[in-house]
Amino acid sequence: MAQPSKFVFTREEAKSPGDSLINIPFLIPLVRGPFSTSKVVALGFGSSGRVFVGVNVEFPGLPLHHSIHAEQFVVANLALHLDKKLNCLALSPPEAPCGHCRQFLQEIREAPEMKIILSDQNGDNVSTVSLESLLPNRLSPDSQLPNDVPRLLEPRYNRLTLSGPDSDVPDRYPDLKPAGLVAANISYAPYSKCPSGVALVDLQGSVYRGWYMESVAYNPSFGPVQAALVDYMIRGGGGDRGFTEIVGAVLVEKKDAEVRQEQTARMLLETIAPNCDFKVFHCCENPKEN
Amino acid sequence: MAQPSKFVFTREEAKSPGDSLINIPFLIPLVRGPFSTSKVVALGFGSSGRVFVGVNVEFPGLPLHHSIHAEQFVVANLALHLDKKLNCLALSPPEAPCGHCRQFLQEIREAPEMKIILSDQNGDNVSTVSLESLLPNRLSPDSQLPNDVPRLLEPRYNRLTLSGPDSDVPDRYPDLKPAGLVAANISYAPYSKCPSGVALVDLQGSVYRGWYMESVAYNPSFGPVQAALVDYMIRGGGGDRGFTEIVGAVLVEKKDAEVRQEQTARMLLETIAPNCDFKVFHCCENPKEN
Ligand SMILES: [Zn+2]
Ligand SMILES: [Zn+2]
Repeated sequence: MAQPSKFVFTREEAKSPGDSLINIPFLIPLVRGPFSTSKVVALGFGSSGRVFVGVNVEFPGLPLHHSIHAEQFVVANLALHLDKKLNCLALSPPEAPCGHCRQFLQEIREAPEMKIILSDQNGDNVSTVSLESLLPNRLSPDSQLPNDVPRLLEPRYNRLTLSGPDSDVPDRYPDLKPAGLVAANISYAPYSKCPSGVALVDLQGSVYRGWYMESVAYNPSFGPVQAALVDYMIRGGGGDRGFTEIVGAVLVEKKDAEVRQEQTARMLLETIAPNCDFKVFHCCENPKEN
Repeated sequence: MAQPSKFVFTREEAKSPGDSLINIPFLIPLVRGPFSTSKVVALGFGSSGRVFVGVNVEFPGLPLHHSIHAEQFVVANLALHLDKKLNCLALSPPEAPCGHCRQFLQEIREAPEMKIILSDQNGDNVSTVSLESLLPNRLSPDSQLPNDVPRLLEPRYNRLTLSGPDSDVPDRYPDLKPAGLVAANISYAPYSKCPSGVALVDLQGSVYRGWYMESVAYNPSFGPVQAALVDYMIRGGGGDRGFTEIVGAVLVEKKDAEVRQEQTARMLLETIAPNCDFKVFHCCENPKEN
């Protein structure tokens, strides 16, 4: 049986004996399991003191914009654990985040102050730089969002309720719809105002969920299926069988929205989980709530 | 009738009287037509002395990773005009490229030396910085590609021929298949080795084409339909009716490739050009050619 991957470390676990700094080379071997073929591992240090692991995930057969970068995996990992801020990020092999991720990370409050740990290929000569120094003259959320709008990872509630009558067909996986709605309500979509959430269920009946996270630069936005797959991976879903054990999926999004995930979500799920029963439910903002 | 957009300027056209430098505020009003609603205009100064225009293009109803950034539009414009290098880039409103585009631009030879023109919001206080200074510690193609591999915009030929027997159904738009193959043969896919090309035809019978362009960071890769839509726009396709006049499309790509564009291409075309007859033809590398 494959050793389960470990995707979250407490502050104590993350310190190797005698070290005051987080020890990255010490952590890397602890990240194992079905995703050990990933070429990049990222470690994110959250404001709660926990350390969150991310790996890169590729989807053979699909265009590369579906790929999950290890840095975005880390952010989704923090989001799923409701950690409110990413303070520091390190990659292994030791390199700076790519431009796509430097842009995506801007959605986090005070992103320019985020620390990025760099070193040479042996892990020596460790230095720390600010994200600002890696993306000067950034395209910033501040250009479009007032300061009091919650940023990525900050608590938000989108006031969404399910709309329209349900079909008469009994639901095979009744847990998915409410889980998808909860996810859509946490989704970060301040630019398009088109939040969405996904819930998945596997053969064992475990439910996973994730939500859409948007970028002011549009293209680096992170899809809701990708986010739910991160939940699936960090909670040990699938084991050696990867995504094929996913048997049910629900997407909750607004009807006729400017940004709709339905077709892309269906395409991705059909490719990685051919046995998956995929349903879409529509939601709308509830004006009565506040 | 809408004034046609102008997407390429000769060196002479690009100079306003009395100026030695390219005059960006002078050029902007010349970019008109059906895409005047675009929020961002980019100007790229090619090694041939011509100035190439790009605008941002969004696709309502689809996830934001389908969007075309003005900077990527410029690169596709250079590619379609076989200009081999982008020397200098400026945006209006005057700001630096987003992180996603800074990463994509790395595929161009000597990208760190590319000049980016910055100014304040009035177009005053013009300064020029290097792309390197905007993306230090870059994720570089050099980490994966030997120096003699042609980079984006440099001439390349992928030795692709069409594979498999043709169907017996007569082809409604027989020009598209060879045009798509030519495009696939120019496609820049050095990482996945899965090049692809798209050809489009409109109601007037004009044929447009574009090819897939890949990024070492995967997600910023530029799809073949997007590239063909750039050709459509810069050559005045559609006029005020946008993309709905596209009636036929062909995608040429490898069968069973690790990166396949078919489903994404179909989804995008169904959304923007509901009358489009979309066909896929497969190709393979011809070992006899060299
Ligand atoms: Zn990245
Ligand atoms: Zn951009």
